[in-house]
Amino acid sequence: MLKKLEEHACHGGALVIYEHASEALNCDMKFSVFLPPQITDGKRPAVMFLAGLTCTHDNFTTKAGAYKKAAELGLIIIAPDTSPRGSDVPDDDNYDFGKGAGFYVNATQKPWNKHFHMESYITDELYNIIHRELPVREGRLGIMGHSMGGHGALTLYFKYPEKFVNCSAFSPIVAPAEVPWGRKAFKGYLGEDKTKWIKHDACALVREFDTIESPMILIDQGLGDQFLTEQLKPELFETACKDAGQALKLRLHEGYDHSYYFISSFIEDHLTHHAEVLSA
Amino acid sequence: MLKKLEEHACHGGALVIYEHASEALNCDMKFSVFLPPQITDGKRPAVMFLAGLTCTHDNFTTKAGAYKKAAELGLIIIAPDTSPRGSDVPDDDNYDFGKGAGFYVNATQKPWNKHFHMESYITDELYNIIHRELPVREGRLGIMGHSMGGHGALTLYFKYPEKFVNCSAFSPIVAPAEVPWGRKAFKGYLGEDKTKWIKHDACALVREFDTIESPMILIDQGLGDQFLTEQLKPELFETACKDAGQALKLRLHEGYDHSYYFISSFIEDHLTHHAEVLSA
Repeated sequence: MLKKLEEHACHGGALVIYEHASEALNCDMKFSVFLPPQITDGKRPAVMFLAGLTCTHDNFTTKAGAYKKAAELGLIIIAPDTSPRGSDVPDDDNYDFGKGAGFYVNATQKPWNKHFHMESYITDELYNIIHRELPVREGRLGIMGHSMGGHGALTLYFKYPEKFVNCSAFSPIVAPAEVPWGRKAFKGYLGEDKTKWIKHDACALVREFDTIESPMILIDQGLGDQFLTEQLKPELFETACKDAGQALKLRLHEGYDHSYYFISSFIEDHLTHHAEVLSA
Repeated sequence: MLKKLEEHACHGGALVIYEHASEALNCDMKFSVFLPPQITDGKRPAVMFLAGLTCTHDNFTTKAGAYKKAAELGLIIIAPDTSPRGSDVPDDDNYDFGKGAGFYVNATQKPWNKHFHMESYITDELYNIIHRELPVREGRLGIMGHSMGGHGALTLYFKYPEKFVNCSAFSPIVAPAEVPWGRKAFKGYLGEDKTKWIKHDACALVREFDTIESPMILIDQGLGDQFLTEQLKPELFETACKDAGQALKLRLHEGYDHSYYFISSFIEDHLTHHAEVLSA
């Protein structure tokens, strides 16, 4: 049961905030949906945006400046939260683990394994909700994300090609098994066994992926991003895509950082990228 | 002395957050500036955006989605805070008075008269700073605002036509001397004498204004705005403009509310409105 918390007219369509009791996460969750004006004529293609560390559903919703273009293109945009929420949910003192840092995996380690099932939440529970309760056209869902959410978008695209038919990312963590943010999260959520980690590592997954039918992946990365060399390493994904035969457009932008000012500067290109595949 | 707190590449230009010690307000203040890419070729026209109750410099900056169009038009945008700030500054328990609610007047009543001089801050101190320290072209400054900031934009435009050459507003408080928000603020900041209040009331000011040379004022108002009938009353300003001979384009939008989703839906029209006058 979706509970509508807010609804705002926006660019001829509507921005709606929903809350629901999540079975996958054992807590109440919020997400936002932009419904373009074209839904009055029937179901529309949709894109899910997965946010980065510390974010909720709200960051993309208020800061990305995406809805003018989405209204033009007739795209639905769904922005979920980044972790389970609520006072029952365990947390960590640091910003890069626990709440706000679900990393889009299903945790197997205590105490995280009771709530931190963001992979199932996104790909199963929320996926079913948006197709059942919202005017999302069957077989027309793309996925994109930023930073940790870029990792989520890439890995869930590779793991669930029957659900997500197109992918793009801003400043994604492409090799989480190799960088501090990812290693910390995977160790905490999945345990010490690194063979479990690479099942959630975009650079590893693309090498196993059937790239023949896969559309080009669009990635934007700022060269002024403070996390570029330690956490993001887009060159690793460039090499992995080349090895795997995955078409990739990696755009490097002089001076741009890791913020939503960067995302808002290029979001329209991502929406166009998704609309081209999803409307085909 | 401006201290740069943040700088982000944004739509080919830059979004900068400055802090400075304000003499007018007796405290440190922050404001944001969007610098379009065209400043590399020289000074540019600018628009100041005055925000509404509870806001800081940050709300417009992160939520309005204004900078893509500003970059296209070559417009600088300055977004100040809405009141003095800091632990020395007196406050009120309610959202509509004290901090976040400066109402763009110079308070004469204790304890507010030590800090609450937003009229002087905007029209004198900040006005001089942006012309001295930033690439703002002389004689090419417009003013716009939302709600309490719409009141600020209209009244400061009417009081300082030599400084602000164009004006627009979203959901402005047009008759503060007649509505609860304005009466509470004016009583607190200016005292019981209502002859002082009407010197800060857009409906009263436009009747005294030299409208012959004044460009058309653009106002957007949502018809789903919860404050429409009690606090905003755009019909009063429509009548006042008609009486005064002031050209007004008042657009009423079915379903839109008082939020930044509304502002972001129509901000590009306001920037175009300002660019047309400021670039002439």
